[in-house]
Amino acid sequence: MSRFLSEKYNGLKVYTPGEQPKDRTYVKLNTNESPFPPSPYAMRLARIAAGDLQLYCDPDCGALISAAAEKFGIEEDEIIFTNGSDEALWFAFMAFCDNGAGAAFPDITYGFYRVFAGLFNLPYTEIPLKSDLSVDADDYAGINKTVFIANPNAPTGKALPLCDIERIVKSNPSNVVVVDEAYVDFGGQTALPLIKKYDNLLVVRTFSKSRSLAGARLGFAMGNKELIKDLKAIKYSTNPYNVNRMTQAAGLGALLDGEYFDNCVTMIVNNRKYLSDKLKELGFTLTDSKANFVFAKKDGVAGKDLYLKLKSKGVLVRHFDAGRTADYVRITVGDMREIETLLAKLEEIL
Amino acid sequence: MSRFLSEKYNGLKVYTPGEQPKDRTYVKLNTNESPFPPSPYAMRLARIAAGDLQLYCDPDCGALISAAAEKFGIEEDEIIFTNGSDEALWFAFMAFCDNGAGAAFPDITYGFYRVFAGLFNLPYTEIPLKSDLSVDADDYAGINKTVFIANPNAPTGKALPLCDIERIVKSNPSNVVVVDEAYVDFGGQTALPLIKKYDNLLVVRTFSKSRSLAGARLGFAMGNKELIKDLKAIKYSTNPYNVNRMTQAAGLGALLDGEYFDNCVTMIVNNRKYLSDKLKELGFTLTDSKANFVFAKKDGVAGKDLYLKLKSKGVLVRHFDAGRTADYVRITVGDMREIETLLAKLEEIL
Repeated sequence: MSRFLSEKYNGLKVYTPGEQPKDRTYVKLNTNESPFPPSPYAMRLARIAAGDLQLYCDPDCGALISAAAEKFGIEEDEIIFTNGSDEALWFAFMAFCDNGAGAAFPDITYGFYRVFAGLFNLPYTEIPLKSDLSVDADDYAGINKTVFIANPNAPTGKALPLCDIERIVKSNPSNVVVVDEAYVDFGGQTALPLIKKYDNLLVVRTFSKSRSLAGARLGFAMGNKELIKDLKAIKYSTNPYNVNRMTQAAGLGALLDGEYFDNCVTMIVNNRKYLSDKLKELGFTLTDSKANFVFAKKDGVAGKDLYLKLKSKGVLVRHFDAGRTADYVRITVGDMREIETLLAKLEEIL
Repeated sequence: MSRFLSEKYNGLKVYTPGEQPKDRTYVKLNTNESPFPPSPYAMRLARIAAGDLQLYCDPDCGALISAAAEKFGIEEDEIIFTNGSDEALWFAFMAFCDNGAGAAFPDITYGFYRVFAGLFNLPYTEIPLKSDLSVDADDYAGINKTVFIANPNAPTGKALPLCDIERIVKSNPSNVVVVDEAYVDFGGQTALPLIKKYDNLLVVRTFSKSRSLAGARLGFAMGNKELIKDLKAIKYSTNPYNVNRMTQAAGLGALLDGEYFDNCVTMIVNNRKYLSDKLKELGFTLTDSKANFVFAKKDGVAGKDLYLKLKSKGVLVRHFDAGRTADYVRITVGDMREIETLLAKLEEIL
């Protein structure tokens, strides 16, 4: 760090993205990417957009907003698009976590919540998951903090039912509850219908998982129009042109190609079932994942060992080397070829 | 605004992007876009990248960094890529403008500096341009604030010589001096050679103007590796995957296609000369612009009137309705067809 960096960043802990080693070709099951390419229609629109890059993109993301509003049955002023859902989450931290109350989120969840809070020196409370690694909705009822809940949660994959989310939202009327639904399309229950009923609910989504656009960087947030207005104020004070032309086009194509989306999601869900069954046959214990990954451990095998041995055999999975997650590995649900490779390597190792 | 928005944003003034009206087709000379499409090589690489969007982009922008380091004769750890140069500027505001000293920039300059400072409640000083609308380097010598200088400046187009920039950098050894070189390729002197000599200089560039990639959103900052490390800490605490795959690819193509870049810049510079001469013949007074726009006024004609009349005739230029800039219009240097249309409409109006 330079001698010029503001002292408020002393001790800053940055986010560590999943590794992307370039030393060899891996079967990459570590960052929850889709094993399927983007919708052909998404690719086509993106490629057309590449011809007009000399012109600024639409800062309002008008075409995307309009398509998404129709798709999700909400108003256009109830949605904002961002440069990945990380940006939507970051905007929410900036907007709604004033130093007074601060934020609350599970101790085991998406690692970026802690990073955002740290960056802005916001007080935050990490609430331990239950012993079965599920979120206890009671812990958040009337907590009077800005709540961040990933539902399904990562890296556990476990989901809360809608009634629990509603209880959290309803019992915290003075604070925003952010429900991060990055993985919802693979089996979770969305809180989206509640945004008409509660003005303190923000639902955050991404195109990175179920819509095969991790590399395009597109996320969005939906909520009461006043909340969305707040996030737009942050956006227009930082980076109005935050979503480039090609990504807006790709996102539009992905939204409109519902059949492709449905097929991809169905395949992932089926593959998750297959992978889970096979892992159980191999003696693994799994959480009940509703996401595009599984979270698995095996008695007598350290998570880190397994991760390292798989890596040496050309298969990347993710290991979180701390606390209760240390026993586990998180494995992205790939296509059948990737799953069979993983299983074969596991059999060699065990 | 919602009742949840942090009070610190009370009175927040957001940035107003140049208008993008959709009511009719305009000759668009209001946002300093290039009249030329991106390099064919840039388009080709972007289109290839559209096929792999299911995979996250390289958070380090490795290929881009490597090409840029070679192109600009600096080390790889002296450069960071961002989602447009706005993001680089924003990161610099976050990192280097602590509440103590605050920021300093001209009263007439890129409007976003004021917005960034306002967002973070940073104290800032706006230093009036001289009566000829040029920056007085003496005003910034030893000012002991974080300095933001657009060079060439916008919307005046006027540039400082390198010796003046060096004086500002040298006389403020305890503060970062950010030189925003968005328009430097059209005739300014870059401060880049000074980054090896001074550890407090940050040079910010964009692909939006001379490289025809406004809609792709790509900017970068170059400076001492400790400064770059600071900006990377901010990036990895907010949005590690800030530059998507297609934009990284387009940027690489644009960087490598030096011949296309040179041709575009030459045409803009020639067109600027032609447009300036014609405007002078029509009785306009112009600043000495080194950018891809001209800043022009005509005695007896209000800037706003001219802007509105041109708009009604299908030509968009930009007007800043305040203070000393109110007399002027800023006109992007387009291609010859656009320039001839503008001149014809001006003759009709005058």
